[in-house]
Amino acid sequence: MRVAVVGAGSIGLAVAWRAALRGAEVAVHDPEPGSGASRVAAGMIAPVTEAHYGEEALTPFMAASADAWPGFARELAAATGLDVGFRDVPTLVAAVEDGDRAEIDRQSDLYRATARAVERLTPRAARKVEPLLSHRVRAAVLAPQDRAVDPRAVHSALLAAVEVAGVELRRETVADLRDLDADQVVLAAGCGSAALGDLPVRPVRGAVLRLRAVGDQPLPRTTVRGFVKGHPIYIVTRDGGEVVVGATSDERGHDRRTGTAGAVHDLLRRSIELVPEIAEYHLAEVSVGFRPGTPDNLPLIGRLDHRTLAATGHYRNGIALIPATADAVADLLAGEERPDLAPFDPLRFKRTAAPRETPPVGPAPAASGHRPDSNRVAENAAPQRVAPSAPDPSADHARERPAPSIPTEPAAEEARP
Amino acid sequence: MRVAVVGAGSIGLAVAWRAALRGAEVAVHDPEPGSGASRVAAGMIAPVTEAHYGEEALTPFMAASADAWPGFARELAAATGLDVGFRDVPTLVAAVEDGDRAEIDRQSDLYRATARAVERLTPRAARKVEPLLSHRVRAAVLAPQDRAVDPRAVHSALLAAVEVAGVELRRETVADLRDLDADQVVLAAGCGSAALGDLPVRPVRGAVLRLRAVGDQPLPRTTVRGFVKGHPIYIVTRDGGEVVVGATSDERGHDRRTGTAGAVHDLLRRSIELVPEIAEYHLAEVSVGFRPGTPDNLPLIGRLDHRTLAATGHYRNGIALIPATADAVADLLAGEERPDLAPFDPLRFKRTAAPRETPPVGPAPAASGHRPDSNRVAENAAPQRVAPSAPDPSADHARERPAPSIPTEPAAEEARP
Repeated sequence: MRVAVVGAGSIGLAVAWRAALRGAEVAVHDPEPGSGASRVAAGMIAPVTEAHYGEEALTPFMAASADAWPGFARELAAATGLDVGFRDVPTLVAAVEDGDRAEIDRQSDLYRATARAVERLTPRAARKVEPLLSHRVRAAVLAPQDRAVDPRAVHSALLAAVEVAGVELRRETVADLRDLDADQVVLAAGCGSAALGDLPVRPVRGAVLRLRAVGDQPLPRTTVRGFVKGHPIYIVTRDGGEVVVGATSDERGHDRRTGTAGAVHDLLRRSIELVPEIAEYHLAEVSVGFRPGTPDNLPLIGRLDHRTLAATGHYRNGIALIPATADAVADLLAGEERPDLAPFDPLRFKRTAAPRETPPVGPAPAASGHRPDSNRVAENAAPQRVAPSAPDPSADHARERPAPSIPTEPAAEEARP
Repeated sequence: MRVAVVGAGSIGLAVAWRAALRGAEVAVHDPEPGSGASRVAAGMIAPVTEAHYGEEALTPFMAASADAWPGFARELAAATGLDVGFRDVPTLVAAVEDGDRAEIDRQSDLYRATARAVERLTPRAARKVEPLLSHRVRAAVLAPQDRAVDPRAVHSALLAAVEVAGVELRRETVADLRDLDADQVVLAAGCGSAALGDLPVRPVRGAVLRLRAVGDQPLPRTTVRGFVKGHPIYIVTRDGGEVVVGATSDERGHDRRTGTAGAVHDLLRRSIELVPEIAEYHLAEVSVGFRPGTPDNLPLIGRLDHRTLAATGHYRNGIALIPATADAVADLLAGEERPDLAPFDPLRFKRTAAPRETPPVGPAPAASGHRPDSNRVAENAAPQRVAPSAPDPSADHARERPAPSIPTEPAAEEARP
């Protein structure tokens, strides 16, 4: 069977890898592999602390994927010799102010509903687990099994793995899925899936900071998450001294630059409030990406027609869902039944919309672009529930552009006249 | 007369240019022209709002240099065809909180002592002059003649001007002034002057942000300065949509990276407080430089010996003092008397120290490097008055390294698979 995968982000590459290992002849099409959300993401594998109200249908899939990650990482390492930075440290969720403490209480109920390990900690106990936590922290929850990988290392390893597995990587743009010479087509183009597959995927913009400890500065031992004046923040530390802080969330269009000053300010303020040591680090990079959001925040995984499958719309959870998505799509390609994927049916919105007399047309609210009357980045806004809609005419702009990723290491040489 | 200038920052290049125009045969030595403070600076020419208590001896020199700038910029443009971004817009100093309002009152007295135009404004009048000023501003002062240039454009134009004037640029390191084959030597090596000339110049670290307006975002019409919880902040706008925000000030050693996260946070917080629109811009670059500070904050301009002149130690005022310094040094090279330069005598500290029984030895407090007990960037600390001291043994690290200047414009192409 000849399979064409559209999109060489980490989802597309993982699907290609798994399909090739199961005997398919696979080609992946992408003019710029990894230019999308894959290399901006922070890499949390957090079935507990990424649980959200209204997204309960995702819980078993997130859990299965989290449990599959250690083995998936080992397989990737064995196939390529590359480490993906899987980090077996717990996640701590903390709050400073009263309102945020109440938010932690609400979240705890949600966390417990995942039926995975969750532990309420006193502030003193929390600082024992994470000595860099602010002394002002008043409430904390520990999720011992919420872990993290390095998404850039994952993407690099997947690129190597597909090559080893004999997958062909075609660095070219696909304008129309019908142009592809293949028995089966997998659409894994992130935000670009909207235009290519007539799917309700919208870009949800997010800024992420990469900091670097200098010299012997102490580093967080855990992944630290929290709420600061109602805004979520996370701090993911990697072996080697990189500290990733994320993420803003807005739907102000497709520009990677508008409002990054405000986004950086907000991310630094919130992360410094939880972990004051953050202020001592070097701000090495600001990157902006676009999460492929869907109307119900659940991914689009399943058949579009007899020849086409979708593996897209992973919103905040792309990295976490790599192993489960890759195996699910490989199963579907092999003709296996996967009734557990029903909540992710990519045609679920069209089926709902069918009885309507007059389906709404025009650009989805998510793609309305710059709002000149807004005086602030609309950060962490609740995901907009987009009504079933006609294809978004502006969605062809939605595919991510190369991230403005800016290593800021100074040159090592001294310069003296 | 053969003149060797050590240092191809803007001071060194301007001295070389003026000396060459007056007939000298000039060579400038620098392995990396413009790698120091010249291209980090914001470029304010602000004899009023850069006035500081204890630095009154600088007032006439700052005034003369400010008055010389328009002609100097025209001459540079005529010689090179390059524009230096001289911007004839006023400077507004504003405050939000009561404590900062009191600071503005104190500053106003100092500003008036410069005998240049100063105007107290009501908040309403201030917002008429600068519509982007926060509605929370409670006090403001206008300095109609404090202006700005683009220091990078200035440095580029000076590089072109010295070439036109026949100056030789030698991209090589000078280890010892005695190695130079010249009749006269001008030491203009910024922080590197400490080791080369046995001068009390210490690096005062500062971070500066370069933001960029996106699309049709409105820009400040004026240079906005202010005090936010006692910390000074400035916002300099250039034609073309660049907005420069500065600057932090600390003496935590020679690393360009330590604490840039905290520095960026503080600069954004303070600038957004005065001009909320800042949050909407793109954070295009973070750069860190080292101001060449002196014990009394006054520059070192004058004779070191019969063959050697100093033109260094300009601290915060390097760009503002380019024309006056260049003409002063050209006068001294021509054998003219310049009694007005007496306060800047580069040997003034040695003369004071001479009668001492036991001159203090060891590293100056300013160069004590990283303070592990400090939990925050010591920003905007009052300049340390360093006692007359022996040469700082750590000063040979003080010469600036290339700035981690990070253009973050995304690539223009759309990428779609």
